[in-house]
Amino acid sequence: MKTRNFFAHPQALVESERIGAGTRIWAFAHVLRGARIGRDCNIGDHAFIEGGAVVGHRVTVKNGVMIWDGVSIADGVFLGPNVVFTNDRTPRSPRLPQVAERYRSGKWISRTRVERGASIGAGAVVVSGVTIGRFAMIGAGAVVTKDVPPHALVVGVPAVPRGWVSEAGQKLEFDAAGLARCPSSGQRYRLRGGKPVKLQ
Amino acid sequence: MKTRNFFAHPQALVESERIGAGTRIWAFAHVLRGARIGRDCNIGDHAFIEGGAVVGHRVTVKNGVMIWDGVSIADGVFLGPNVVFTNDRTPRSPRLPQVAERYRSGKWISRTRVERGASIGAGAVVVSGVTIGRFAMIGAGAVVTKDVPPHALVVGVPAVPRGWVSEAGQKLEFDAAGLARCPSSGQRYRLRGGKPVKLQ
Amino acid sequence: MKTRNFFAHPQALVESERIGAGTRIWAFAHVLRGARIGRDCNIGDHAFIEGGAVVGHRVTVKNGVMIWDGVSIADGVFLGPNVVFTNDRTPRSPRLPQVAERYRSGKWISRTRVERGASIGAGAVVVSGVTIGRFAMIGAGAVVTKDVPPHALVVGVPAVPRGWVSEAGQKLEFDAAGLARCPSSGQRYRLRGGKPVKLQ
Repeated sequence: MKTRNFFAHPQALVESERIGAGTRIWAFAHVLRGARIGRDCNIGDHAFIEGGAVVGHRVTVKNGVMIWDGVSIADGVFLGPNVVFTNDRTPRSPRLPQVAERYRSGKWISRTRVERGASIGAGAVVVSGVTIGRFAMIGAGAVVTKDVPPHALVVGVPAVPRGWVSEAGQKLEFDAAGLARCPSSGQRYRLRGGKPVKLQ
Repeated sequence: MKTRNFFAHPQALVESERIGAGTRIWAFAHVLRGARIGRDCNIGDHAFIEGGAVVGHRVTVKNGVMIWDGVSIADGVFLGPNVVFTNDRTPRSPRLPQVAERYRSGKWISRTRVERGASIGAGAVVVSGVTIGRFAMIGAGAVVTKDVPPHALVVGVPAVPRGWVSEAGQKLEFDAAGLARCPSSGQRYRLRGGKPVKLQ
Repeated sequence: MKTRNFFAHPQALVESERIGAGTRIWAFAHVLRGARIGRDCNIGDHAFIEGGAVVGHRVTVKNGVMIWDGVSIADGVFLGPNVVFTNDRTPRSPRLPQVAERYRSGKWISRTRVERGASIGAGAVVVSGVTIGRFAMIGAGAVVTKDVPPHALVVGVPAVPRGWVSEAGQKLEFDAAGLARCPSSGQRYRLRGGKPVKLQ
């Protein structure tokens, strides 16, 4: 007999067996067969995780988030409420005769990766085929259409750069010498090649 | 005794009888009495289709889409995840005394039409009172505030034109002679009066 | 024995006892323990109202709206489908070691207030820490990042002013003398200090 060591709300539908210990899945959420979810995640109400999607450890998936086949989410990521991913850059209804061939092939899927510790704000939409770098922060309501570098803050439609954030998610203000200090953790960063690097 | 020839997930709520053969309705979706849905549609989890809404054949309604009274969707349309329609251009809470009269009258509804084969990207919002032409493509996260011509690609908030797409959803690059070829199907198009027309 | 004098759909989850008479809560909606909701509200399918959230009387909460701890909604407000609130301006996954301290403290919550009679259009996102004034109107798909004055119409990402609306939600066109008349109710308004004031 198999013991589940994650929690699922009685109104959640959980069809995958590959869910880590300590993870909690809330009401009206639906995790499909073939989805993989790590340890100590929190999956909010009305979330949907499709077969083929991969979610790491300690990820926060707020309510209504949709994660499709082709999307992978690394450890410690925050996905705000109603964040929507996609996996098709030129979608048509697959039962339209003009595109039936394309959807039969399986080649239509375009992949998306969200790296360790990144945050995606409420209601943001991620157009498929991009990588969101580690500890990046996507503003609420942004539409991400290209790669986002590590630690970058991006906002708007389409999302454009607006500065840099620390691992703790706080704005980094670099001085003339290219040094900044996270106002929350005290951790120091240096700009190297125009990008923040954490100092030991 | 009546035989349903569509599929409804045990957790779906289906209160309409006017649903075509081969249509599938998934978990936590809700189809209200008075909604009409054609054949061979796919209605994703958490979708909501109100009485008075009309959905054609072979339509893909991804998860979380909301289709209200006053909205009609033609055959072969793709509605991406979390696409939201509206049916009131100046909404107030109907139980606010200042507007009780307006909502009693029923005249507040403004209609929206999505024509054959069009696609609406994830998280897009369609402000009511518009027509989205056949085989148009609405970018992810766009906010549509006016009519979209057939085959047009529109993106942004508010949505603005960005080019043309084929029936198969591929970008059409017109040459100096006003001719283009769909890179997926090989189908040829000509600009006539500034708009793409499919050649036989 | 306690009598509930509100309506809850059999598929709704209602864990709060503080819900006013005449309020209706529809399928797959979830109202958590500690949420407060007034009289004669309408809470649509798939809505989510967290403990600590406060909703006044005669409020319309359309489908899929998410109202978190720290958000308060005054009487007569309209929240369109898929409107999303937030309550954290620099979100990270709380189980990320770099931010565990911040989330333990409870000090991370930033509050949002929507005043009497305001409307928020479909799919709009409200970044936390703002006040939306009475009878303001937020356009569909807008992203609100700062305070919105009473009677203001704002649209876009980020939301910017576009004019003024009456209590009945109709555009106010002020003449050279600074006077306007609501085309729906006939109610007259005067600009005072650049802001609309209702005349008796």
